[in-house]
Amino acid sequence: MPISLGELATRFGCDLDGDPDVEVIAVASLTGAGPGNICFLSNSALQQQLSSTKADAVILRAENAADCPVASLISDNPYAVFARVAARLHPVPGAVAGVHKSAVVDPSARVADSAQVDALAIIGERSVIGENVYVGPGCVIGADCDVGDDCRFVANVTLPRAVTIGKRGIFHPGVVIGADGFGNAMTPQGWVKVPQVGGVRIGDDVEIGANTTVDCGALGDTVIEDGVRIDNLCMIAHNVHVGEHTAMAAMTGIAGSTVIGKRCMFAGASGTVGHITICDDVVLSGQGMLTKDVTEPGTYASSFPAEKIRDWNRKVAIFRRLDAKDRRTNKLAKGDS
Amino acid sequence: MPISLGELATRFGCDLDGDPDVEVIAVASLTGAGPGNICFLSNSALQQQLSSTKADAVILRAENAADCPVASLISDNPYAVFARVAARLHPVPGAVAGVHKSAVVDPSARVADSAQVDALAIIGERSVIGENVYVGPGCVIGADCDVGDDCRFVANVTLPRAVTIGKRGIFHPGVVIGADGFGNAMTPQGWVKVPQVGGVRIGDDVEIGANTTVDCGALGDTVIEDGVRIDNLCMIAHNVHVGEHTAMAAMTGIAGSTVIGKRCMFAGASGTVGHITICDDVVLSGQGMLTKDVTEPGTYASSFPAEKIRDWNRKVAIFRRLDAKDRRTNKLAKGDS
Amino acid sequence: MPISLGELATRFGCDLDGDPDVEVIAVASLTGAGPGNICFLSNSALQQQLSSTKADAVILRAENAADCPVASLISDNPYAVFARVAARLHPVPGAVAGVHKSAVVDPSARVADSAQVDALAIIGERSVIGENVYVGPGCVIGADCDVGDDCRFVANVTLPRAVTIGKRGIFHPGVVIGADGFGNAMTPQGWVKVPQVGGVRIGDDVEIGANTTVDCGALGDTVIEDGVRIDNLCMIAHNVHVGEHTAMAAMTGIAGSTVIGKRCMFAGASGTVGHITICDDVVLSGQGMLTKDVTEPGTYASSFPAEKIRDWNRKVAIFRRLDAKDRRTNKLAKGDS
Repeated sequence: MPISLGELATRFGCDLDGDPDVEVIAVASLTGAGPGNICFLSNSALQQQLSSTKADAVILRAENAADCPVASLISDNPYAVFARVAARLHPVPGAVAGVHKSAVVDPSARVADSAQVDALAIIGERSVIGENVYVGPGCVIGADCDVGDDCRFVANVTLPRAVTIGKRGIFHPGVVIGADGFGNAMTPQGWVKVPQVGGVRIGDDVEIGANTTVDCGALGDTVIEDGVRIDNLCMIAHNVHVGEHTAMAAMTGIAGSTVIGKRCMFAGASGTVGHITICDDVVLSGQGMLTKDVTEPGTYASSFPAEKIRDWNRKVAIFRRLDAKDRRTNKLAKGDS
Repeated sequence: MPISLGELATRFGCDLDGDPDVEVIAVASLTGAGPGNICFLSNSALQQQLSSTKADAVILRAENAADCPVASLISDNPYAVFARVAARLHPVPGAVAGVHKSAVVDPSARVADSAQVDALAIIGERSVIGENVYVGPGCVIGADCDVGDDCRFVANVTLPRAVTIGKRGIFHPGVVIGADGFGNAMTPQGWVKVPQVGGVRIGDDVEIGANTTVDCGALGDTVIEDGVRIDNLCMIAHNVHVGEHTAMAAMTGIAGSTVIGKRCMFAGASGTVGHITICDDVVLSGQGMLTKDVTEPGTYASSFPAEKIRDWNRKVAIFRRLDAKDRRTNKLAKGDS
Repeated sequence: MPISLGELATRFGCDLDGDPDVEVIAVASLTGAGPGNICFLSNSALQQQLSSTKADAVILRAENAADCPVASLISDNPYAVFARVAARLHPVPGAVAGVHKSAVVDPSARVADSAQVDALAIIGERSVIGENVYVGPGCVIGADCDVGDDCRFVANVTLPRAVTIGKRGIFHPGVVIGADGFGNAMTPQGWVKVPQVGGVRIGDDVEIGANTTVDCGALGDTVIEDGVRIDNLCMIAHNVHVGEHTAMAAMTGIAGSTVIGKRCMFAGASGTVGHITICDDVVLSGQGMLTKDVTEPGTYASSFPAEKIRDWNRKVAIFRRLDAKDRRTNKLAKGDS
């Protein structure tokens, strides 16, 4: 449904430089836009795309407005305004109340009248599904789960048991929340499984990406606080605690019992060992690995950028010789000859 | 169904050294073979296995034919000939036309008469399924997907929405194509989700391994070109573009908007940061991470081989001291004392 | 169901220091415990939690008994005893014999009378399901599988074909066992798929974590021996052989045809290249990568701990200069100037 620039400016608190009656109908990129489109410019590296855009309007910072050939919506945070405009123009379809005839809902479950349980989905014993929740095709919500209002399980999400989720969560296909943590005790006869009796507690406004796994606690719960965003193929182990508004890019792994602060950001394929505490506002770069407590906010790293293999292998060889060299020097210094 | 060596030689363009009327019925390894089996020798490191093979025939290079105790099919590319012979002897079962009575097909979907929709599979609104497509058990093909002829979705594959696929694709269990990319705008109140409105376009002859995820574009599409092969547990982020015949081994991760050339090869657990461009014919070794544009074909690396932890830790300690040493030297050079 | 300390001591071979008639009903952590709870103390770093515990009993080593304010169950391996006590107090619900009316079982499959096939699960052609097996909701057991007694497939597990499993296995949601390995032969026209005709053989007492993938063999089988424990999001490639009681933490990847010994332990995000052999009792630390045969037991490593990015980048820069420095030194040494 189209919306006028004037209404967007009012609704999202922007200054408008242009005709308030122009209507836009869809978001687009600066280079891909045409009539009816609205774009954003947030990264100044893309500023040269501005002059040739065919969009009807661009959301941008005041400093870029003079260069904009079309209408401008001016904001200090163009990307956030764009996010809200896009959500207005491209709303996710809401739940259509009802249970599909192919779904299987346990008689002891309580599903809100306004919730939708789609084809071939399953709701287990004693589970509670809140208002306007969408349980997509093939999802398995196991026993003793409690799902807050307005959550969305896209498709084929699995919650085996004992997961509590707040409001407005979004869970993408293949997500598994509440499977057993990895607990094993060694004996002379081999490993003995340690039963994982805890659950998972997830706050409001959490989004978890495709094929990510969040294990249940061994004793006590694994906890994901409000506003956390986790990308695809991440691993949150048993009894991890992730603080508010922390974000993890794809393939991040957090080992058991580690406590992560608020507003942390993990780049792709990074992670931590278990049983450590990371303070608020820590950023970890790609493939980085935190191995001990972090008490100071800031950015941390431990990976190397790739280079031509011949150059790389030469460096690795030198690195390996450093050790022998170092020991030789030390021996000399000690007069060991 | 058995086939004669003569027919195999003719069909796959090999020279035959042996009786053309001998029939083979199954492929095997050189050491595991028995009567009726055909093997290949491609890696000369395995040449010593040739003399004792119990196979009826071996596909190999001319240079190895003299050492072969049984019939030889001679080719410059024995592994590719073997692949084709194996496909002839062990064909994947084709689609058996029809929709299983437990499947759920939206009335607005169009499924070709020759396609098979297996048990408990789902076809969503407006989706189009081509000729001879196999949609395996538990698969969810969401709304607005377009699947080309002869594709095969093995089982429990999920395409939430808006995925276009060419012909002859193979998608293994747990694959998720078209889930939302990871787009979030920070605000004082926390993250705001950036709607992901693009789709995914996949070319012909693409194969994607178990539990791999390919996200939809934020604006515009994520693109996988013809002939790409992706192994298990890989991550292709939003708006990535993967060029023809590129191959990625397991656990490879490509961050958002990165453009990968043709015929690249990513070894296991390797990856790239986002927003970079990799030219054609780049090879990245295991656990390697590309962090900037690559303009020159060749092999790149950035990982270390494991060694005994005591030796490794000593090297890491020296590496960490290099920094202090370097600063001391620099200070001395500058006369800072 | 509650159990007395006396019975626990007898059943699990502990010395009891306390009233044998006290009954406990649930496990808990030392700090989270209350009346009716039993805890353990295994890690002496947590010893200070002992004095204030509100539990009714603690399983611990003799050396800690004097400091225990409540009843003690004394054992050399408190964690293993705890695992067994927890399994007694929190038993996994067993199979409830029968096939759910929404499940789809091929007429040629043989399902033991005592097995349970839960809602919307699928059993394929010729597959055999043993006594007391639980096939959870949404699971797909494909054709030609053979599942031993007392196995448990929690939910949405997929075995596309030809998987043989021993007794008492536990398979968490999203696990895929037996999908095609990554076999491709290059030709001038692009990749040709190499059919993967082997299967997977899994021993007794194996547990595999959520969203882990184990590929079928190319020729011959992929093998997981008895007692192996694999965490979430791991990758076992075609024709890998994993020895008894080996454990792999999350995100471990083993490339094709590699042979892993017995009682090995892989920490998170570690892995190996393909076609190597790792002896028994090898430990690989987090993010480590084994690149060649290992013939000596012990611990191996190849990753760096993260530090502040400014410090890290300075070290990386020095590392990169080492190469030029080394070549300059060598040139000087050779008199090349």
